[in-house]
Amino acid sequence: MSFDPESLSYNEAGLIPVIAQDAHTHQVLMMAWMNAEAVARTLDTGRVTYWSRSRQSFWIKGESSGHVQELVDFRIDCDGDCLLVLVDQTGPACHTNRQSCFYTAIRDGEPVELMKPMED
Amino acid sequence: MSFDPESLSYNEAGLIPVIAQDAHTHQVLMMAWMNAEAVARTLDTGRVTYWSRSRQSFWIKGESSGHVQELVDFRIDCDGDCLLVLVDQTGPACHTNRQSCFYTAIRDGEPVELMKPMED
Repeated sequence: MSFDPESLSYNEAGLIPVIAQDAHTHQVLMMAWMNAEAVARTLDTGRVTYWSRSRQSFWIKGESSGHVQELVDFRIDCDGDCLLVLVDQTGPACHTNRQSCFYTAIRDGEPVELMKPMED
Repeated sequence: MSFDPESLSYNEAGLIPVIAQDAHTHQVLMMAWMNAEAVARTLDTGRVTYWSRSRQSFWIKGESSGHVQELVDFRIDCDGDCLLVLVDQTGPACHTNRQSCFYTAIRDGEPVELMKPMED
């Protein structure tokens, strides 16, 4: 392919932020990070693969939980320093078992819980 | 208000990534950064205000272009280290005059332009 993952702009830790959006509902699910190899693996396999900063290892989303993200579309922003992946999400995206990580709103200065954990 | 912007998790530069999503179309528009004071200003004024890393100054989105973002909803992720703002976007969000910064897809290894600049 002519797209080179190394052509993106990575931060000083070699990482680029990645927004995951549900391709069907358009809900923003989560934000995580990839390095150039995770970008290549995601494009090669169609299975969204991040870099875990806490574990310092590749993180094939859903590998242990089953809550996988199949890649539907892979997009780059104007500066090449942020990615948007549209995904087919199986189960909840959040480790709290909620559909999205963004389940807390601040309204009139107070936190409001927008979603409950999904049933197993 | 009981929500304290200082309670969020900022990176070593004192910044938190912010995803802007169109509240009406649900299109992901852009990703930028806020510091704690930009978070407070955004919530206080209802006008989305970032921190410009290149200019090292507050960046009231659209202040010079007129392409403002009125805050519709302010959301925090499960780890408190990423924000999602739902906005009422006037005009294009991208400095290239496109609706969204994520106008390039990678499909079959090749870049594909998804949007053209909007007419003035």
